[in-house]
Amino acid sequence: MSQATNQSWGGRFSEPTDAFVARFTASVNFDQRLAPQDIQGSIAHATMLARVGVLTDDERDAIINGLNEIQGEIERGEFNWSVPLEDVHMNIEARLTEKIGITGKKLHTGRSRNDQVATDIRLFMRDEIDVIEVELKRLREGMIELADREAETIMPGFTHLQTAQPVTFGHHILAWQEMLARDHERLLDCRKRVNVMPLGAAALAGTTYPIDRHVTAELLGFDRPTENSLDAVSDRDFAIEFTSFASILLMHLSRMSEELVLWTSAQFNFIDLPDRFCTGSSIMPQKKNPDVPELVRGKTGRVYGHLMSLLTLMKSQPLAYNKDNQEDKEPLFDAVDTVRDCLKAFADMVPAIEPKKASMYEAARRGFSTATDLADYLVRKGVAFRDAHEIVGQSVAYGLKSEKDLSEMSLDELKQFSDTIEQDVFEVLTLEGSVAARNHIGGTAPNQVRAAAQRAREALSALKAGA
Amino acid sequence: MSQATNQSWGGRFSEPTDAFVARFTASVNFDQRLAPQDIQGSIAHATMLARVGVLTDDERDAIINGLNEIQGEIERGEFNWSVPLEDVHMNIEARLTEKIGITGKKLHTGRSRNDQVATDIRLFMRDEIDVIEVELKRLREGMIELADREAETIMPGFTHLQTAQPVTFGHHILAWQEMLARDHERLLDCRKRVNVMPLGAAALAGTTYPIDRHVTAELLGFDRPTENSLDAVSDRDFAIEFTSFASILLMHLSRMSEELVLWTSAQFNFIDLPDRFCTGSSIMPQKKNPDVPELVRGKTGRVYGHLMSLLTLMKSQPLAYNKDNQEDKEPLFDAVDTVRDCLKAFADMVPAIEPKKASMYEAARRGFSTATDLADYLVRKGVAFRDAHEIVGQSVAYGLKSEKDLSEMSLDELKQFSDTIEQDVFEVLTLEGSVAARNHIGGTAPNQVRAAAQRAREALSALKAGA
Amino acid sequence: MSQATNQSWGGRFSEPTDAFVARFTASVNFDQRLAPQDIQGSIAHATMLARVGVLTDDERDAIINGLNEIQGEIERGEFNWSVPLEDVHMNIEARLTEKIGITGKKLHTGRSRNDQVATDIRLFMRDEIDVIEVELKRLREGMIELADREAETIMPGFTHLQTAQPVTFGHHILAWQEMLARDHERLLDCRKRVNVMPLGAAALAGTTYPIDRHVTAELLGFDRPTENSLDAVSDRDFAIEFTSFASILLMHLSRMSEELVLWTSAQFNFIDLPDRFCTGSSIMPQKKNPDVPELVRGKTGRVYGHLMSLLTLMKSQPLAYNKDNQEDKEPLFDAVDTVRDCLKAFADMVPAIEPKKASMYEAARRGFSTATDLADYLVRKGVAFRDAHEIVGQSVAYGLKSEKDLSEMSLDELKQFSDTIEQDVFEVLTLEGSVAARNHIGGTAPNQVRAAAQRAREALSALKAGA
Amino acid sequence: MSQATNQSWGGRFSEPTDAFVARFTASVNFDQRLAPQDIQGSIAHATMLARVGVLTDDERDAIINGLNEIQGEIERGEFNWSVPLEDVHMNIEARLTEKIGITGKKLHTGRSRNDQVATDIRLFMRDEIDVIEVELKRLREGMIELADREAETIMPGFTHLQTAQPVTFGHHILAWQEMLARDHERLLDCRKRVNVMPLGAAALAGTTYPIDRHVTAELLGFDRPTENSLDAVSDRDFAIEFTSFASILLMHLSRMSEELVLWTSAQFNFIDLPDRFCTGSSIMPQKKNPDVPELVRGKTGRVYGHLMSLLTLMKSQPLAYNKDNQEDKEPLFDAVDTVRDCLKAFADMVPAIEPKKASMYEAARRGFSTATDLADYLVRKGVAFRDAHEIVGQSVAYGLKSEKDLSEMSLDELKQFSDTIEQDVFEVLTLEGSVAARNHIGGTAPNQVRAAAQRAREALSALKAGA
Repeated sequence: MSQATNQSWGGRFSEPTDAFVARFTASVNFDQRLAPQDIQGSIAHATMLARVGVLTDDERDAIINGLNEIQGEIERGEFNWSVPLEDVHMNIEARLTEKIGITGKKLHTGRSRNDQVATDIRLFMRDEIDVIEVELKRLREGMIELADREAETIMPGFTHLQTAQPVTFGHHILAWQEMLARDHERLLDCRKRVNVMPLGAAALAGTTYPIDRHVTAELLGFDRPTENSLDAVSDRDFAIEFTSFASILLMHLSRMSEELVLWTSAQFNFIDLPDRFCTGSSIMPQKKNPDVPELVRGKTGRVYGHLMSLLTLMKSQPLAYNKDNQEDKEPLFDAVDTVRDCLKAFADMVPAIEPKKASMYEAARRGFSTATDLADYLVRKGVAFRDAHEIVGQSVAYGLKSEKDLSEMSLDELKQFSDTIEQDVFEVLTLEGSVAARNHIGGTAPNQVRAAAQRAREALSALKAGA
Repeated sequence: MSQATNQSWGGRFSEPTDAFVARFTASVNFDQRLAPQDIQGSIAHATMLARVGVLTDDERDAIINGLNEIQGEIERGEFNWSVPLEDVHMNIEARLTEKIGITGKKLHTGRSRNDQVATDIRLFMRDEIDVIEVELKRLREGMIELADREAETIMPGFTHLQTAQPVTFGHHILAWQEMLARDHERLLDCRKRVNVMPLGAAALAGTTYPIDRHVTAELLGFDRPTENSLDAVSDRDFAIEFTSFASILLMHLSRMSEELVLWTSAQFNFIDLPDRFCTGSSIMPQKKNPDVPELVRGKTGRVYGHLMSLLTLMKSQPLAYNKDNQEDKEPLFDAVDTVRDCLKAFADMVPAIEPKKASMYEAARRGFSTATDLADYLVRKGVAFRDAHEIVGQSVAYGLKSEKDLSEMSLDELKQFSDTIEQDVFEVLTLEGSVAARNHIGGTAPNQVRAAAQRAREALSALKAGA
Repeated sequence: MSQATNQSWGGRFSEPTDAFVARFTASVNFDQRLAPQDIQGSIAHATMLARVGVLTDDERDAIINGLNEIQGEIERGEFNWSVPLEDVHMNIEARLTEKIGITGKKLHTGRSRNDQVATDIRLFMRDEIDVIEVELKRLREGMIELADREAETIMPGFTHLQTAQPVTFGHHILAWQEMLARDHERLLDCRKRVNVMPLGAAALAGTTYPIDRHVTAELLGFDRPTENSLDAVSDRDFAIEFTSFASILLMHLSRMSEELVLWTSAQFNFIDLPDRFCTGSSIMPQKKNPDVPELVRGKTGRVYGHLMSLLTLMKSQPLAYNKDNQEDKEPLFDAVDTVRDCLKAFADMVPAIEPKKASMYEAARRGFSTATDLADYLVRKGVAFRDAHEIVGQSVAYGLKSEKDLSEMSLDELKQFSDTIEQDVFEVLTLEGSVAARNHIGGTAPNQVRAAAQRAREALSALKAGA
Repeated sequence: MSQATNQSWGGRFSEPTDAFVARFTASVNFDQRLAPQDIQGSIAHATMLARVGVLTDDERDAIINGLNEIQGEIERGEFNWSVPLEDVHMNIEARLTEKIGITGKKLHTGRSRNDQVATDIRLFMRDEIDVIEVELKRLREGMIELADREAETIMPGFTHLQTAQPVTFGHHILAWQEMLARDHERLLDCRKRVNVMPLGAAALAGTTYPIDRHVTAELLGFDRPTENSLDAVSDRDFAIEFTSFASILLMHLSRMSEELVLWTSAQFNFIDLPDRFCTGSSIMPQKKNPDVPELVRGKTGRVYGHLMSLLTLMKSQPLAYNKDNQEDKEPLFDAVDTVRDCLKAFADMVPAIEPKKASMYEAARRGFSTATDLADYLVRKGVAFRDAHEIVGQSVAYGLKSEKDLSEMSLDELKQFSDTIEQDVFEVLTLEGSVAARNHIGGTAPNQVRAAAQRAREALSALKAGA
């Protein structure tokens, strides 16, 4: 049995853990990332235990000093992580006991690794959400400024990737910003549900020690202790909810990436990305590849996968804690890192996008993009919309054959399709007239774009003040 | 071209749609479900158009009367859905024009099917969320009452499906209720983001007609119009967010189902489910199968699949609307139906669960479930927790060999492992003592369970009042 | 109890099934699709039972005649499907007993609904795989012929959606065909594992009747009976494997769709799709949208979702049959329908793709697509590849500034970057020279494309002969 | 520009890569795992280049010697991996040039990183598949032997986790083995499609050098070169197909794990797992947790997630290579490691499962497990099956009330429900009689189990001989 004594549960066992099994079931290789939060939680726990009289003040101080020293060892890379000690919790506790003797063993009073790890992850997630929010705000700000700057820059708007109607580049960038505004809301909604404290649930049922969970919650900055111990040790909703937020965010970034890749193609030629965000080819000397958006688009799969992984993990698990739950950390850590890095890459890159205005304008001029304006013109002259649509459809069919855009046809040519068309039609068929006419909240008219940018700026500021 | 005249976009085309393609691309078979919302949206749109002078009051009234008649036809099953008319929107509009003539064609002024369908789905989702919330509340109430009733019923608590510590059945049911409380919050957070109006975004860029989107939003009970037209027609976040809510909810129901299935097995024998929630076997006459929880557990996959489907659908889509988006409806509709039906089945079934108290109690007595209490006892007598753990581990190893639970050992037998153990240990080793001792917020002590039930009841009432 | 007598398992139950539960747990609404296979399986089962003496020949004939009549009723839409009878099996058996009396009840001897439904689905899948294979072959043939026709048509090849090197359109289409060739192999590998017979596994353990499973397997065209009854009634691997095949196939179709959508955009303008495969816009009269590829791309999510649904469904299910399994049918049916329809749409559409050769050629001329050829030229003149790469990179940088492609520079301009460049460089810089020079198996040289098309044609024929 | 000269594509660029972008887009941290395959591929490539005259024999030898030295440096941990050099390929090539000078730069002639990495991954996957197959065979063998040993051990068979009919433990284990036999087939089918060589596709279109791809394929042990260069550099089907195999395999292991967890619970108490495969609790001294099966069950989500990740990654990617593809490696590597480790853990553990025969037998005796046998008995006496089912159902209802199993009722009690029942019924109601009577291929009769084990053993041997 002595072979097993470095473990926290050896007494009942008649043979040591199989060496491969020990490695297979250990989590220390990845959960050591939680060390700062583990120590933070332990310090609060010790403080509370002293306040309720389970520890003396001296014991508390010894523990806190020991933990602070360990924190330093970890930061300096001097800590010796041990796989036989299974996880971050036992590694730190073993080192603490090594340092301060038997008092170190008292730290685990009134808690279990089940509530301890749940607390660590929530502290970690709260920290990471706050870091992510900084990058998200920076990206939103960059978009709002770019949109404001380009409120009058005309480009073709697409549906079905076919030229639809002219829009402004600023309007397009604000569409991206709207997606992120929703992501931001979801992130804050998720944070509310992260910031609740499981510590005190112990293994599953609570503890017989006279703990005061409100004290610990306050020390750790949690909004409140959790309501039910069985739920507290087994709940991983916050991990799924965060990964769900991350999946929607990455979906948005994948859409923006797709457009950036299209726009930098020779065929679209709508924008330039600075060289510093691109890489080349080992074989084709002319290549300048939009690696950052491509890679972000690719990372969408990664995050979707983590969401599916966590949902599968929790499916059908009976209460309370099961070993399966150990598998929550790696997908969650990777989702956190991916979100943070992708946001950072975008926040750096988006303000540096260089629109090629002439090329965008020329593209908007082609493709019968003002056909709807012509139909609307006819309606204003009394034609029913559905009939106007048919008339313009025939004009377009004619234009395709004669290779002329609507604004290139003569009045006589246009009149073939409807007598209602007069000389004033040509004002309607300009790109500037087309965008300016969509002049209502949400529309692409430049003054609407500027107003929307201003509202977005204010909403973001309000959020910052509130957060 | 005449073959295509029943379609809304024939003018530009030189050959009719291929018959298979027409069927393949049509959505009317499933989107007809949106007819009530389509009509509701059209009535509000017509009202707004009249208010801003685009329609006369007579035109508006004709349209509204026509739409109301169509609503009746649909409800009575008399409406003739046509696949060549592609979708619910064109079916209704064509019928309207049939009824009221050319005025019917004016309804589509200032909107497009792109913003129309986005509006319809959001109206639909808002309605369905409210229905779902009713079932969710009913289920939570049923759980709270069951938990209160069974606050003192002792059962074994499990971790790793191994007997861990005694808990009360009420405490266990409240763990379920906590899961649903979080789902409830997520549902309401999602509803906020659903209840925003895309109408007025038109095809992608807004419209040249002098629409007033605030009027329409108010008529339809939306909180506000959307901020950006390109985003408005292409945003399906709300569908993904709802399906993500649904996935987490079904994950919770799958966990409860797993436990219900375990508990009705001959091996656990913890509860009875009334016959009306079970079915039998065509070949094995003795079988009584817990079909409802099994089926709900199975439906988890269905909803996870819909989430993945919608996330994949939106991945890398450039702005604005693409035909891909038509694929949003079937997974969303099915997720809505699945959530509603599973909640209803659970809300009916949970209050009818019959705990077999003697069987639960007996199970808790076995499996050394009070081992932690013995360790805590030793700690109170001055032994360090980690040492106490080792002592109890050895007692358990002895118990396994001698086939005695801790409470069945004599004092002498217990003293083999530690001299610190005295006669008073036997109080600690009772199940009642064990649960009563976990007496803090979140703990399993019966008075804590009753207090938690009361807090849950109040939180739910507050929510009802607020909603 | 009499309320429950129309069910196959009433004897043990003391109250009828709850009405909502009956509807919630019934499968007849979707599994009636299996009726032809259910009848086919029952006929074979009855034939075998008569052969081993469990039924008389008269009983067998009565059963077979009755089933054939029922088949006719179903085909004519005269069959009355009943939800209280739960599923397709009980509906058909109840009708059989109605028709032929007590003998009808004998059909269920030696089998259970568990092995019956497993058999039905496998028969169904085998039929559908064969239908799907026909469409897949048709599509592959269409691609091979298109590729052969366009073996010399030059277009830009892309990596990172940036112009990389010239390729031929035929070569590009053959890349698609290669994807499908692998899908075809996977489909046939899947079919092997579908075509094994679970019938005879009965409820889970086999049956006490003297059945001969080899006889039934032979009657139904199965390769062999399954080896283990517990596995046979619970195995749904074939459904997952098919859905996995379908996911990879749809992934391929989504890639082709993406390219079709890009190529029909005004910006690429590489191909035309006939009007019959496109639809228009209700608001923008000029639009011609590539609906078919967009919709197929969207349907990718649907099939991925079904795969995830089935994987989740089976996760952690203990043996043998659980009610969860009822959830296998809807995703599987929808995956089958989606695959078949998408393949049909593509098989119709691909041969009708009209390449715009001049536009493709012009695009290939721009973008420094022959930069690699210049580097290779330098290497042939003795420059190390990495150095040649640097030289060409500088030429391209110069070309970007001076707005000249490589072939538009003078010899003097080119010599700025390397003295090694001579007059013969201009042969290398032609598109025709570039593609012809990639003259090895798998390369884009026109003669290689034609040879590859011929090999593909032969491989497909060999497969047809073998299947 | 000089800042970028350590990269393979600097010439065209006017500013160095952003430091964060360089780190964000680099892959060397994970793709260095491919170093052995990268070197193996390079040696074959150099050998082929010399054979066709592109390299001299001396150049070839210098390259091969240099690569072999680098291999040694890597193995000894002396190699200095550099993030600015982006990936494993450039790291090795840069080191080679450092070692052997300009000749090192010639190695990249006629290939690109696009075909190079595709070749490396396929070589890697082929190696790993072979390692995985060894563990899979070992696990199957362990199951076959366990099944053979326990061919007569009676346990309850379950459907819906309710006692259904008695089966033998050997029969149950063979059901597991059947699942793995299908996985094995799928693995070998996947290997066929892995073992095809992309090298020679170069960047996307093939190369102008006179390469001989058949030579390289033969040197590397590939079955053949790929047929199309565009497809070759962008195809990741094999990664998805492997992950799909892995998902189904893990699904199977999750099912076995679920059963192992159930069986080790106090409630089932069907088996013991040796201590070396279990771990304990830091707080509950009595706990012995089945960590290995729990963890394997949890890892199911991980692999499902990777499958979804890869499917999402490839969705809608246009040809040919895009940077997104770099994201293929981490999920694939992790899937490989997870499969290998889970199989190893199971292969070690399964032969050590200790069935608790008395406990299993007792469980089978309860729960009316022979009710079907009674019904079959009645049928043999001339009662129609459906009527027999009703009779037995009523007997069971009586048994539930009187707390007697069928075999515990007197003949008189049984006769209440049918006069047809005689004294000989009691033979039918024994467990041994019940299992022995299911005596056909796939049935649970002990002699069938032994025969099935023998067939499985032979099939596995045949496979080994063939592989």
